[in-house]
Amino acid sequence: MGLTVKLFNDVSEGVKGAKNLITDVNGVLVGQTTVDDGDVHSGVTAIWPHQRGLFKNKVPAASYVINGFGKSVGLVQIDELGTIETPLVLTNTFGVGTATNALTKLMLASNPEIGDTTSTVNPIVAECNDGDVSNIRKMRLTEADVNAALNSASDHFAEGAIGAGRGMMCYDLKGGIGSASRIVRIDDHSYTIGALVMSNYGFLQDLVVNGQPIGKPLAALLAADKHKEEKGSIITVLATDAPLNSRQLKRIAKRATVGINRTGGFIGNGSGEIVFAFSTTNLVQHFAKQNVETVQRLNDNVIDTFFRATAAVVDESVLSSLVHAESIVDRKGRLRFSFVDAAKELVRRQPEYSDMVNQVFTELGVIK
Amino acid sequence: MGLTVKLFNDVSEGVKGAKNLITDVNGVLVGQTTVDDGDVHSGVTAIWPHQRGLFKNKVPAASYVINGFGKSVGLVQIDELGTIETPLVLTNTFGVGTATNALTKLMLASNPEIGDTTSTVNPIVAECNDGDVSNIRKMRLTEADVNAALNSASDHFAEGAIGAGRGMMCYDLKGGIGSASRIVRIDDHSYTIGALVMSNYGFLQDLVVNGQPIGKPLAALLAADKHKEEKGSIITVLATDAPLNSRQLKRIAKRATVGINRTGGFIGNGSGEIVFAFSTTNLVQHFAKQNVETVQRLNDNVIDTFFRATAAVVDESVLSSLVHAESIVDRKGRLRFSFVDAAKELVRRQPEYSDMVNQVFTELGVIK
Amino acid sequence: MGLTVKLFNDVSEGVKGAKNLITDVNGVLVGQTTVDDGDVHSGVTAIWPHQRGLFKNKVPAASYVINGFGKSVGLVQIDELGTIETPLVLTNTFGVGTATNALTKLMLASNPEIGDTTSTVNPIVAECNDGDVSNIRKMRLTEADVNAALNSASDHFAEGAIGAGRGMMCYDLKGGIGSASRIVRIDDHSYTIGALVMSNYGFLQDLVVNGQPIGKPLAALLAADKHKEEKGSIITVLATDAPLNSRQLKRIAKRATVGINRTGGFIGNGSGEIVFAFSTTNLVQHFAKQNVETVQRLNDNVIDTFFRATAAVVDESVLSSLVHAESIVDRKGRLRFSFVDAAKELVRRQPEYSDMVNQVFTELGVIK
Amino acid sequence: MGLTVKLFNDVSEGVKGAKNLITDVNGVLVGQTTVDDGDVHSGVTAIWPHQRGLFKNKVPAASYVINGFGKSVGLVQIDELGTIETPLVLTNTFGVGTATNALTKLMLASNPEIGDTTSTVNPIVAECNDGDVSNIRKMRLTEADVNAALNSASDHFAEGAIGAGRGMMCYDLKGGIGSASRIVRIDDHSYTIGALVMSNYGFLQDLVVNGQPIGKPLAALLAADKHKEEKGSIITVLATDAPLNSRQLKRIAKRATVGINRTGGFIGNGSGEIVFAFSTTNLVQHFAKQNVETVQRLNDNVIDTFFRATAAVVDESVLSSLVHAESIVDRKGRLRFSFVDAAKELVRRQPEYSDMVNQVFTELGVIK
Repeated sequence: MGLTVKLFNDVSEGVKGAKNLITDVNGVLVGQTTVDDGDVHSGVTAIWPHQRGLFKNKVPAASYVINGFGKSVGLVQIDELGTIETPLVLTNTFGVGTATNALTKLMLASNPEIGDTTSTVNPIVAECNDGDVSNIRKMRLTEADVNAALNSASDHFAEGAIGAGRGMMCYDLKGGIGSASRIVRIDDHSYTIGALVMSNYGFLQDLVVNGQPIGKPLAALLAADKHKEEKGSIITVLATDAPLNSRQLKRIAKRATVGINRTGGFIGNGSGEIVFAFSTTNLVQHFAKQNVETVQRLNDNVIDTFFRATAAVVDESVLSSLVHAESIVDRKGRLRFSFVDAAKELVRRQPEYSDMVNQVFTELGVIK
Repeated sequence: MGLTVKLFNDVSEGVKGAKNLITDVNGVLVGQTTVDDGDVHSGVTAIWPHQRGLFKNKVPAASYVINGFGKSVGLVQIDELGTIETPLVLTNTFGVGTATNALTKLMLASNPEIGDTTSTVNPIVAECNDGDVSNIRKMRLTEADVNAALNSASDHFAEGAIGAGRGMMCYDLKGGIGSASRIVRIDDHSYTIGALVMSNYGFLQDLVVNGQPIGKPLAALLAADKHKEEKGSIITVLATDAPLNSRQLKRIAKRATVGINRTGGFIGNGSGEIVFAFSTTNLVQHFAKQNVETVQRLNDNVIDTFFRATAAVVDESVLSSLVHAESIVDRKGRLRFSFVDAAKELVRRQPEYSDMVNQVFTELGVIK
Repeated sequence: MGLTVKLFNDVSEGVKGAKNLITDVNGVLVGQTTVDDGDVHSGVTAIWPHQRGLFKNKVPAASYVINGFGKSVGLVQIDELGTIETPLVLTNTFGVGTATNALTKLMLASNPEIGDTTSTVNPIVAECNDGDVSNIRKMRLTEADVNAALNSASDHFAEGAIGAGRGMMCYDLKGGIGSASRIVRIDDHSYTIGALVMSNYGFLQDLVVNGQPIGKPLAALLAADKHKEEKGSIITVLATDAPLNSRQLKRIAKRATVGINRTGGFIGNGSGEIVFAFSTTNLVQHFAKQNVETVQRLNDNVIDTFFRATAAVVDESVLSSLVHAESIVDRKGRLRFSFVDAAKELVRRQPEYSDMVNQVFTELGVIK
Repeated sequence: MGLTVKLFNDVSEGVKGAKNLITDVNGVLVGQTTVDDGDVHSGVTAIWPHQRGLFKNKVPAASYVINGFGKSVGLVQIDELGTIETPLVLTNTFGVGTATNALTKLMLASNPEIGDTTSTVNPIVAECNDGDVSNIRKMRLTEADVNAALNSASDHFAEGAIGAGRGMMCYDLKGGIGSASRIVRIDDHSYTIGALVMSNYGFLQDLVVNGQPIGKPLAALLAADKHKEEKGSIITVLATDAPLNSRQLKRIAKRATVGINRTGGFIGNGSGEIVFAFSTTNLVQHFAKQNVETVQRLNDNVIDTFFRATAAVVDESVLSSLVHAESIVDRKGRLRFSFVDAAKELVRRQPEYSDMVNQVFTELGVIK
């Protein structure tokens, strides 16, 4: 589950969901496949908005491109129609074609009308480049790997160097999958908003945790490259059960950038930063019985509560991905430090940083 | 009122509203001021989406920029919030500041909360450059002129070289204000969609009316400039009582380009082509009693009916502006021909075109 | 090659390139694979902007979404960086994953740095749904089919029901691949602009050819569905050797809509209309020797010439796809008429249309 | 001039321009008018990109809307043509019409061709709502006030509660005008990038300065409203002499959000956050002698240096606006604290915060 501590400078009301995961949004499930095979360290993470027939009961949705150095697919149709009609599959950059095929076949199998008596289907696949850790050129990912993730979806799932996050690096430390959730109260009703990130962005010297510029000594210790060609990215998926329409979901998606940059990001040129947001309320029927139907609409006057929660869950998801990730040996045999291991090494080598590290570890719940 | 004849190749179902004007949409009113003062031939056209307190009861809305060589104001907030909260004022390019001031004052007068206990207000002002006909450098338009248009709004209004359209030129012929409407049927319910255009775009040699390339002989006759620096533009306002949300209204707005180009436009570099679309249904309250309310939502599966109607009403509005406009003497004393007068002159000078002109005149209802 | 006749109401200067194909732009090559296998009638069309190392010498580029009911991939990065770094592959909707894989492997094979010492690569794959004619659910397309198209690229290529256009239907008639080009003169320099379309959009009753509403009798004859769920789309690729930057190429791309709608389109809800535009001038180096280099820049004051040419080449490409396509038996054994065959059948059954058909056939060069 | 201390966690290289102001970009000038008249506390801040005939020598430019709850004008044409052709005028929300008129008249006076023999002109006016402090309903601003700012432009200017920033509130403390600059080195060439902000956004409890959550005790002290309807906004103007084109300038503009949110912003619903960016290199001539000219182009591979500098100068400009602003008595007679005065009051009332305040004051250069 997500972090168990209170987020530093949490701009939300601070009320977490039961698991502090995106799956706190009722119906949302997550499944993952991790692939470690020689110099390949990669995988798949799949998010189901619900499992009651996505193609026939589409979720209102939006995407937002913070920085478009990326190869995610499906955004064009989300933007036009404001819906998502498949699970969302996260994987590495060169797995997009295979994930697209697997997802298409899954939808065809469960919807005999697609491509025959009705239109086609719009698979959503998002990616980061894990080529720093994994041999991405092998294009090792199979449709079976994608199916395994899709079929194992559950409301409990692990974070860190797992699934599509297996080979991802965040602030030059081991990144990957992170998640968090918040409860939002409007009038007398409670809604949940959750985030899942695949973190693979940032430069170590820029890392600030809870106001502490811990990235600078870590970067010196690890001799991190200040001027590397960033091959990063971060994919953010936001889910809510609040009745937000696609315009409002796009506004929410845009606020992911606040959470992403709280730890020191600056939206680098090579960082593909893409956000997807969907609501599990006011589903859009593919075969509509009524062409005009009744739905709920939230007044934008109270949307700040969601904006605050979005900033918080994304910030916390990034931190959670860092805290949960383990150190890993990359495709070239180099040890790639997790945040926790790197900070411990910093204290061992430069004890003057033990106060800073202890404070950060305590605040993040690494030390209880 | 709009054209009384059937539109050539009408892609809609072809059912016109009672007046064949944008004011066929219940509640929509239009007021105009025409200013002829020396070498100034300009004016104001104001469109009220409804008159039941626009600021407190905003209309769902969208804008779409076909080509952004223009100075219209208010689009930024429409895009973000999906609403319009003032009347829409059309005028000439250098009247935008004055119209903004007049519109702001009108809203302040009727809403004492604005800028005091609540937020500010977003005036919508759209413009074309009538400098070909009118001395625009004089900035002659006054706030009183704007108020006169706003205060004279009615569900009947004249088309052609009137109001903001007074000095506009369309395909190098006299253009101005044109309007049309269509009835759209979804299930057992009828909706109305109406357009009002301020036409000021196009090159004469490109003009095609009802499939007839009448622009070429007219351009030769009038020695129209083939390579002029187009200082044109066309503003389109679309209104409907159908429950379209801002995403759907933006889709509708985008289809205006189909209607605009049916007569031979090609979206010239210098032509500011801006579209506004609003719905009078599902109003958004400024001081909401309920933060989550119930609204109607149209399924996009049936939106083609509206797309077709949009293409038709915009096409017909352009033609109606041409048919209704009269010839005028411009700021330099030159006679600027209306379409009807130019075509008559063509027949007089080149009788071989009398068949073409007769056919077009008959089909447009100029000859009955 | 493209149409040999003069385009009706050509808004360009009317000077065609030598082949009247997109390959009139120096360096541009097109290769195609056609797949007829049982009830599968599909294929691949590949466009090479140049063959001097696309990844290392990217073309300035833009994409524009006219209507986003589509699954084309690669747009996100084009929008951000303003470049294309692979050939463009056109195919059917469910071939996108396979084409993405094939294109990625091609780029990896010729660029050992990709995914190892430098960033990843952004494959461009565009699609229409040919499911009306072809059994798209079989996902029959193979990577070998894609490679065959890529490897057979030439400056001569066939139009009509071929390559990715094999199963496409345009205005309910047989559509597919069409192309055209124009010469544009700026100062004392000549530039070429070319288009290639994959046409799969439109309703037959709306079809207007050279001002003649021939679609209405054809629709009655063929009992075309007035209210079908359009599963269409049109992909447009624009190429030029003029020094247009990505902002200007997006402006050009936007004008494709003028050409698309000249025959009666209205941008239907289900029609994915995507445009790609690139320039073969001012290439962007992946491994730049100089971080600041000297390039040419066209002043937007003269861009209308390109806008006019764009409208013309796209209009003509659509017509060329209709004229070149042959009738075909679809996946359900029904004969699907080409435009030419349908018009002949119309004359046979309703001789009163022989004048209209003869005129149109003559003007299109069907009858010489 | 800007802050004299080193920015906390400066993500740029940290090399400031000589004045640490936007006017470090050669040719950029800033002029301001401050209006204190009864309950009106407002003004005008004008930025000249250069003074060598802006209309005839336009600057490459872009705008970016972080959040569109705003009434700034001129963005439509910047987006289309990628240029700015007038000075940029900043003022309060209801001064937009008057500023538009004044700016238009200024351009007409110096360019007799405008609106006569050539096209019109696109005035750029940006606004925030200072209605919390100033009686905005009076619409007190005159064209003379605007002219005074335009005519007094200099490369030295004051920051804080001055000019258009006179009545602005930032994080519920006195905000206003702030500026900063950085030197960026590409190959062997130095470029300057500068920012000017008009800060009027944020909630006090969210304020974090240099990693210190000082906003929470300040909010408790001042009983700041946690759930106020934010009527804020922040306008950011970025200037550089580097050869960035409009696409690249839009990318730069997008990074302003990093700087804005470093102090605790979350892009509130009611906060109009608009960014303008221009380059003083590769000017675009209105009356071009050559339609194709030679310009410099920066490779995006090295753009991160500008992204980092942008984040830094915007962050520092916000802080500089807070540090330079003085306390003020608002339109209702309430004292509105500056950051410095509020922090001093905090120490006086709650001495346990003296360490935090001392640290922050030292780091910001308030205490030397």
